[in-house]
Amino acid sequence: MSSEKYIGIDLGGTKIAGILADAGGAVLAKEKVLTRKEEGREKVIARIFALVRTLLAAAEEGEVKGIGICSPGPPNPKTGVIIEAPNLQWKDVPIITLLEKEFNLPAVLENDANAAAYGEYVYGAAKGRKDIIYLTVSTGIGGGIIVNGELVYGRDFSAGEAGHMVILPDGPLCSCGRRGCIEILASGSAIAREAKALLAKDSKGVSGHADLLWEMTGGDPEKLTAKEVGAAAAQGDRLALSVLEKAFRYLGIALGNLVNLLNPEIIVIGGGVAKMGPMLFQPVIQAMELSAFAHMRRDLPVVPALLGGEAGTKGMVALVRRKIRSVV
Amino acid sequence: MSSEKYIGIDLGGTKIAGILADAGGAVLAKEKVLTRKEEGREKVIARIFALVRTLLAAAEEGEVKGIGICSPGPPNPKTGVIIEAPNLQWKDVPIITLLEKEFNLPAVLENDANAAAYGEYVYGAAKGRKDIIYLTVSTGIGGGIIVNGELVYGRDFSAGEAGHMVILPDGPLCSCGRRGCIEILASGSAIAREAKALLAKDSKGVSGHADLLWEMTGGDPEKLTAKEVGAAAAQGDRLALSVLEKAFRYLGIALGNLVNLLNPEIIVIGGGVAKMGPMLFQPVIQAMELSAFAHMRRDLPVVPALLGGEAGTKGMVALVRRKIRSVV
Repeated sequence: MSSEKYIGIDLGGTKIAGILADAGGAVLAKEKVLTRKEEGREKVIARIFALVRTLLAAAEEGEVKGIGICSPGPPNPKTGVIIEAPNLQWKDVPIITLLEKEFNLPAVLENDANAAAYGEYVYGAAKGRKDIIYLTVSTGIGGGIIVNGELVYGRDFSAGEAGHMVILPDGPLCSCGRRGCIEILASGSAIAREAKALLAKDSKGVSGHADLLWEMTGGDPEKLTAKEVGAAAAQGDRLALSVLEKAFRYLGIALGNLVNLLNPEIIVIGGGVAKMGPMLFQPVIQAMELSAFAHMRRDLPVVPALLGGEAGTKGMVALVRRKIRSVV
Repeated sequence: MSSEKYIGIDLGGTKIAGILADAGGAVLAKEKVLTRKEEGREKVIARIFALVRTLLAAAEEGEVKGIGICSPGPPNPKTGVIIEAPNLQWKDVPIITLLEKEFNLPAVLENDANAAAYGEYVYGAAKGRKDIIYLTVSTGIGGGIIVNGELVYGRDFSAGEAGHMVILPDGPLCSCGRRGCIEILASGSAIAREAKALLAKDSKGVSGHADLLWEMTGGDPEKLTAKEVGAAAAQGDRLALSVLEKAFRYLGIALGNLVNLLNPEIIVIGGGVAKMGPMLFQPVIQAMELSAFAHMRRDLPVVPALLGGEAGTKGMVALVRRKIRSVV
């Protein structure tokens, strides 16, 4: 039993990451390769296979019991088909059949936000909890919901799209076609966009408070990302602070809505923007507390994700392990 | 088996309703009494007991297998204690222990929105579905969420508070303390309030379109309810129509958020305001379709509740039946 091992793969638009881990989620080997999606689907699949082979070679013969793979977009975990992965330009790829055939091992598929949520649940910040909201705030905003220990899937395995919760119906237009969803109000891209717009109005630092952020862009505001806004805010830049204040207030309101709907035991926030730490968590919690019911927000932990870039691969280790155990 | 019967009780602030039903949810007897909460908790409990006795008498000896009771506010279904029922002014009433002791039958407790959701799931509009959003739109807005055939409870058994989803952070102030939650934007009370405010500005029918609604109030706008607004809108009253248009757009946006989060198979809307029929469903669906993802809203039924005032009692029949069967 203790020598059972699992492979977790995180297939992204720019890179493919993989780990070999034991049942406790301890990483025994890891690999990362570029996706190079422009070379086409067959070659990407060949790179996934090669990565799996490398990880298999790091284990003893027969130790690896299964392979879990996550991808962006709505996959169908039941059929193992990647229905659509926009950033890979994939449609209807039966990745699980391909993996199972190639390696003669059980395999499972999940979307990346759900995988990360599950990883944090089994091995990370939400360990021991059963009702969990996981949000990832990076260029976009994604989510995974765990109710009573199980991922919420919904009819099309697409539940958890917290990033497109509308909280400002006449707000800015998101690429998703909606106005005022939290992704357009509080994601990394939204933060960068808002800061650029303010800089454009205030680039010369006339008011004396845009100098820092302006400097950070090296005079080219187009290169600005949420990271610079965070760094400037940490140094007290007022423009950066005002951008974050607004964004994180909206994020907190959305969290409050999620609390009222799902009454979670814990909220875990991951993704690049969450690396801002208390600069994000403090205002988010404050706004959440204003919009959530008192008894539901009482002693409700809102915590940073623990697994970082390994949430997806570790989540897939947990999910493939769970599948094998439920079948046996 | 076929002679097994169950009692379902819906304990409300103004009345207590009860049914005796078979496993198929067919109502064999029903009773209704006034709650008269001002007489105090002991007398209300005595009236619940008397109602149960009447229903028991309508069955053969030994046929009744259990009692289910729902109440407003957050009860604790696990301990069977009504933690708080504001409209009864009850706190920490161990109703299940009391019922089980009095009648020597298993009993279960649930909140009324969850009970209604479960009723629609087992016997009503959502029969045969597994992922369900149930909304009740009356004076307030409540909800129940069913994921993979199970009610979503959350940490404090308080999940499903869809009525207090904020979608207009700087909107009107709700009695719950939040601004711009859908209860203050789209409930029956909200519709009446908005119509009154507009009438106050336009009471003389100067613009020629407030006459009908004004007439319906008998010259006393304070008596106006959503029912009159609906009736006036049905006759083409422009003021009434504009009030409903605004309210139902917000309701639809909130539904879109729920769809993106939970990816349901069906949405069921009950409560007094839903009796407006297509006047509600058409604009709500339209707004929902704008805010929900295309593949999640595709072929998604948004339908009226079927059980009307019996959703709660029938839901409790289903829930007590489920509990007994899972224990046996």
